Amino acid sequence: MELEQFMHELASKAPTPGGGGASALSGATAAALASMVVNLTQGKKKYAAYADELAQILTTTQQLITDLLAQIPADAAAFAPLADAYRIPKEAPQRAAILEAALVQATSVPLAVLQQLDSLVPLIESLVTKGSQIMQSDVGVAAVTCRSALEGAVLNVYVNTRLMHDRQQALALNAEAAALVNDNVIRCQRVYQQVMAKLQ
Amino acid sequence: MELEQFMHELASKAPTPGGGGASALSGATAAALASMVVNLTQGKKKYAAYADELAQILTTTQQLITDLLAQIPADAAAFAPLADAYRIPKEAPQRAAILEAALVQATSVPLAVLQQLDSLVPLIESLVTKGSQIMQSDVGVAAVTCRSALEGAVLNVYVNTRLMHDRQQALALNAEAAALVNDNVIRCQRVYQQVMAKLQ
Repeated sequence: MELEQFMHELASKAPTPGGGGASALSGATAAALASMVVNLTQGKKKYAAYADELAQILTTTQQLITDLLAQIPADAAAFAPLADAYRIPKEAPQRAAILEAALVQATSVPLAVLQQLDSLVPLIESLVTKGSQIMQSDVGVAAVTCRSALEGAVLNVYVNTRLMHDRQQALALNAEAAALVNDNVIRCQRVYQQVMAKLQ
Repeated sequence: MELEQFMHELASKAPTPGGGGASALSGATAAALASMVVNLTQGKKKYAAYADELAQILTTTQQLITDLLAQIPADAAAFAPLADAYRIPKEAPQRAAILEAALVQATSVPLAVLQQLDSLVPLIESLVTKGSQIMQSDVGVAAVTCRSALEGAVLNVYVNTRLMHDRQQALALNAEAAALVNDNVIRCQRVYQQVMAKLQ
């Protein structure tokens, strides 16, 4: 899809793409910036000792771009049954179970995004030392963009779990999300501060 | 440009689009999410009292999507003279002045992005109360995405000012950037926390 067209659809009255798709887009952007830093570091003598590791990072970040972009249509697909469930008359006996299942399904995409970002954060961290020092502002932008993807995805878990009747499952899903977010947000923030300290 | 093609170019060895373009993209994404929240709030009885204000917010956020997306090619255009300046032989007497001017020009785009984000932050804030309460996770994603755009843009100011010989001008540009960032980052973070408190 065209970038401008995507923004137009994001801005529109249509519920998807929305915050879930936007978080996946931020994750893909962060992975792409990490790829760029590797691409502009590889082949430089000063970083020759990291050649194998840089190649491995690039393989993963390239895959993460694809995987995170794929979450944009996946998020829209997971939302459709939820929208359908809300249209079931409130008095219908099957409504509660269908709605509950749709809510669980709607959390699957932001949780998958969080899993993917959990793989990305240590790679961004390693580029603080193993990425070219003239590319450090891009490492910093990757970190802050990854952080916003993490925080956006967790909101998209909570917005669904809060409506679940099965509170035990809701709390388990929240805990799964929180476990993927909290430490990673701190790590992204630390990268941003390290980069800022180099640039100021 | 196609979304996947944009990510491919971001990830590539080409220096632009890079962190500057990615920050502008995050800003546009945040503005688009704010637009969506307004689009899905307008016409609801509960928010009728805010109708005029919501219409004004939408006019501005729609303009900001266009303006922020336009900074992606503008950032690439502003980088070109800098790349050219670095190619001038170090012993050439005109090099220092050309490089200095190119560095100043390269800060112009992230500073423009920061100005645009400075207009966006209060609109996102107002949607915490004036936006539909069922859209609050999207308000939160807009806030964290705007925050990453702010932090990314300021890194792209500092990465250029640190190389300037005219330290007085460098510090003035840094101060201009810091004035646009610090308070707005806190305000975005506050929106995120407010939304999180509603969802948990």
